[in-house]
Amino acid sequence: MKPYDTVAIVGVGLIGGSIGLAIRKRKLAKKVVGIGHRAASLLAASRCGAVTSTTRDLAQGVAEAQLVIVCTPVDSVAPAILAAAQAMPHGALITDAGSTKQTIVDAVAGRLPAHVRFIGSHPLAGGEQSGPTAARADLFDGRQVVVTPTSDNKPADLREISAFWKALGARVVKMTPEEHDRVVAVTSHLPHLVAAAMAAATPRALLKMTAAGWHDTTRVAAGDVALWIEILRNNRGHVLKGLAEFGKVVDSLTDALERGDDRQLAQVLSEAKRNCDAVRT
Amino acid sequence: MKPYDTVAIVGVGLIGGSIGLAIRKRKLAKKVVGIGHRAASLLAASRCGAVTSTTRDLAQGVAEAQLVIVCTPVDSVAPAILAAAQAMPHGALITDAGSTKQTIVDAVAGRLPAHVRFIGSHPLAGGEQSGPTAARADLFDGRQVVVTPTSDNKPADLREISAFWKALGARVVKMTPEEHDRVVAVTSHLPHLVAAAMAAATPRALLKMTAAGWHDTTRVAAGDVALWIEILRNNRGHVLKGLAEFGKVVDSLTDALERGDDRQLAQVLSEAKRNCDAVRT
Repeated sequence: MKPYDTVAIVGVGLIGGSIGLAIRKRKLAKKVVGIGHRAASLLAASRCGAVTSTTRDLAQGVAEAQLVIVCTPVDSVAPAILAAAQAMPHGALITDAGSTKQTIVDAVAGRLPAHVRFIGSHPLAGGEQSGPTAARADLFDGRQVVVTPTSDNKPADLREISAFWKALGARVVKMTPEEHDRVVAVTSHLPHLVAAAMAAATPRALLKMTAAGWHDTTRVAAGDVALWIEILRNNRGHVLKGLAEFGKVVDSLTDALERGDDRQLAQVLSEAKRNCDAVRT
Repeated sequence: MKPYDTVAIVGVGLIGGSIGLAIRKRKLAKKVVGIGHRAASLLAASRCGAVTSTTRDLAQGVAEAQLVIVCTPVDSVAPAILAAAQAMPHGALITDAGSTKQTIVDAVAGRLPAHVRFIGSHPLAGGEQSGPTAARADLFDGRQVVVTPTSDNKPADLREISAFWKALGARVVKMTPEEHDRVVAVTSHLPHLVAAAMAAATPRALLKMTAAGWHDTTRVAAGDVALWIEILRNNRGHVLKGLAEFGKVVDSLTDALERGDDRQLAQVLSEAKRNCDAVRT
């Protein structure tokens, strides 16, 4: 990948900050502009070396960027794309890092100026921590990034954004926005709800008796509540389908325990173990 | 704690092997006898230094032990205690490491010879791995061990077994067998079922799209299926109550998503986050 002169990152939290650190470590751009609302986050991103300059003015921040990456909470992604596009130079590419894709792609479709190209992205990386102080240059190493080109995109858009994520160490997977949202509903959003339900169902008096099993199972539920509400709201249909499928499995476990049916219990636990083992080999 | 001359460990898997390694590292006994059915496990325990000698003959293995620890799968614990007790020397103490306590204590109560003392234990340590090759001398470092004395025990029994677990680096918590089973149903057995349901509800084709969130949430479901069926069967009543409480929380999340009620969603996610954060501080 030919290094950019200027990349702009809108939203310098865990993901935006990590993208900045990775760009700078791998020398993928001369200048990395950090754009955000909160002075404290911009200062932190600057101090940790994730960006070379910062601004709270979106139009000014993207004015010279050949690549803009919007890393805000999901609800703010489409408005930021539309606003940034007005100020971006001719031929610039804009992408995002939002955890859902359909609502974003729909909100942007047909509303971009002709001189700017948009292609959606979602790096499957992150964690329950947030903010630029949690950012890491290796966050995307070996991780998958889903890109969601539409009929509005030319092959060159896909090639460029794929090369960028690969240069950050990631593997790139192409999906439609709908396919992406359907998949992550099961692989990411459902685990979050399940972990949250487990954590919320635990009486506080018992927390001191928890051990590694409880901690692992509930870990993701420590994530930022406001960010997750936006994600879940934007993927409501697929998440509800996932919850229904999950509920059926819980019911079959309950039924097996009530009837003392060890064979049925073993069937579910074995299927679960197969899936767990499969992702570790 | 005054070191023992001989300690016998019945069942040299992850827990039994780790107890052996910890005893030897901390010089808490001159001899550690490993007792088991499978020659391969005994050999592995011997090779990693968890035991100083091995035998497949229970009576012979416990004949000189002042302390016997039964670390077999839950269903085998009570039979092993009753059999070992017949062959143990006068005044010897026997405990176990079973993940449930009520059925074990009930099965042993009133059936031990007068020259032997039994007190139940459950170290809240382990993981999804099993077998002596996964054993670690520091497995109990800073972990909690629940001991469940009954009216059959004298204060000296509790003092002795507490001193032993503390010498292994653990913190000791005293509970009744019923209280223990009620607590671990929520803190350990329910997370296992929840993780298993999440893993089993994931279509295999989507496994390659999973990331850290799915992996953390499902990790414990990689545990040995047969061992877990025994645990769940022995704690059925409390586990079913836990599943019902968990189901209510899942229903409230589903309801909130269906009605688009962000406030209700935030309430559950915030309660979950509070509990997750509480165990990490």
